[in-house]
Amino acid sequence: MTGPRLSFWYEFASTYSYVAAMQIEAKAAKAGVDIVWRPFLLGPLLNAQQGLTDTPFNVVAEKGRHMWRDLERICAAEGLPLQRPSVFPRNSLLAARVALVGLEAGWTPAFTRAVYTANFAQDHDISDRAIVRDLLGRIDVDAEAVLAEADGEPIKTALRVQTKSAQDHGVFGAPSFLTSGGELFWGQDRLDQALAWAKKENEGDA
Amino acid sequence: MTGPRLSFWYEFASTYSYVAAMQIEAKAAKAGVDIVWRPFLLGPLLNAQQGLTDTPFNVVAEKGRHMWRDLERICAAEGLPLQRPSVFPRNSLLAARVALVGLEAGWTPAFTRAVYTANFAQDHDISDRAIVRDLLGRIDVDAEAVLAEADGEPIKTALRVQTKSAQDHGVFGAPSFLTSGGELFWGQDRLDQALAWAKKENEGDA
Repeated sequence: MTGPRLSFWYEFASTYSYVAAMQIEAKAAKAGVDIVWRPFLLGPLLNAQQGLTDTPFNVVAEKGRHMWRDLERICAAEGLPLQRPSVFPRNSLLAARVALVGLEAGWTPAFTRAVYTANFAQDHDISDRAIVRDLLGRIDVDAEAVLAEADGEPIKTALRVQTKSAQDHGVFGAPSFLTSGGELFWGQDRLDQALAWAKKENEGDA
Repeated sequence: MTGPRLSFWYEFASTYSYVAAMQIEAKAAKAGVDIVWRPFLLGPLLNAQQGLTDTPFNVVAEKGRHMWRDLERICAAEGLPLQRPSVFPRNSLLAARVALVGLEAGWTPAFTRAVYTANFAQDHDISDRAIVRDLLGRIDVDAEAVLAEADGEPIKTALRVQTKSAQDHGVFGAPSFLTSGGELFWGQDRLDQALAWAKKENEGDA
């Protein structure tokens, strides 16, 4: 028998994914739930499902204004640093590919936190190879080897498959959480519920 | 000196407004915050801000699927009845006008709960005058007099002004909560935060 698991679908350009990524490990450990890290690209889904070529937070001014203020309030309450990125959304393609490289070796969570901190607390350009190389170095990974692997066809294909899989599971925003039983939760504010559901499901009560 | 106040902006066709409307009085009483009831029409805002002529939950299938499941989970957790309306969204014009009529006499909260229960727990057509008349009768209000007033120009104008005011305050969805200091919170899941903010603001700490 395996323990409870929850898939964490996240996009490196997404503000609420930042908050979720910084919280999820402590919360999951406390709940006794294993997290499956699922970086994907939200852009293709927004385009396929809503015909959008930009984030709704840029397209609808009122939504954007509320989101940034809401994010400030949440980060202040949670003690998370926040510096509004000078470019939003940032291109997350390279970071997502690199994150996929780290899944087997297990450094994806550390890299993910580093990328989000760079993007949302330091206003660094996460699409810049030099920045990503530096982040990899800080988590004691062979940056050159990883970047070479991230450039390869297998990883490019893996990210396409991952993004398609998000779509097939009904994902339409980030972060999203998916239990083994297929229960989908959208939004950082649903993280606690999703963890509780994964646990309940694993105990056969859901 | 007045106590803390929070404006509750709601739309009778909105699912998450239903949950908020059923919770807000107990939560506000516990927090010591006065609620200002602000029924408005979301449709004109969705159209003006996003060019939509229908709810995003119908326009984007994935969003709709998640919303209904999320609502089921929330209602189950909160002990609220839920029967998915056979028509969604229902036309909320009459109900919103009637709700405005009741503000001075103070029966708007009771009427609001009755309308939401009819729409989301009993699958009744809240745009039907006979249904609204019945709901008014149940809260011991002179239904004919109220309906006549709801049909008059002053109330029609008042609803237009109210909806315009929502827009001017940056509202783009329902429910929304607005503090006296202009702090805007969107979504039923922000109700606790909004109440806490209103209190803090009133104490001069915000």
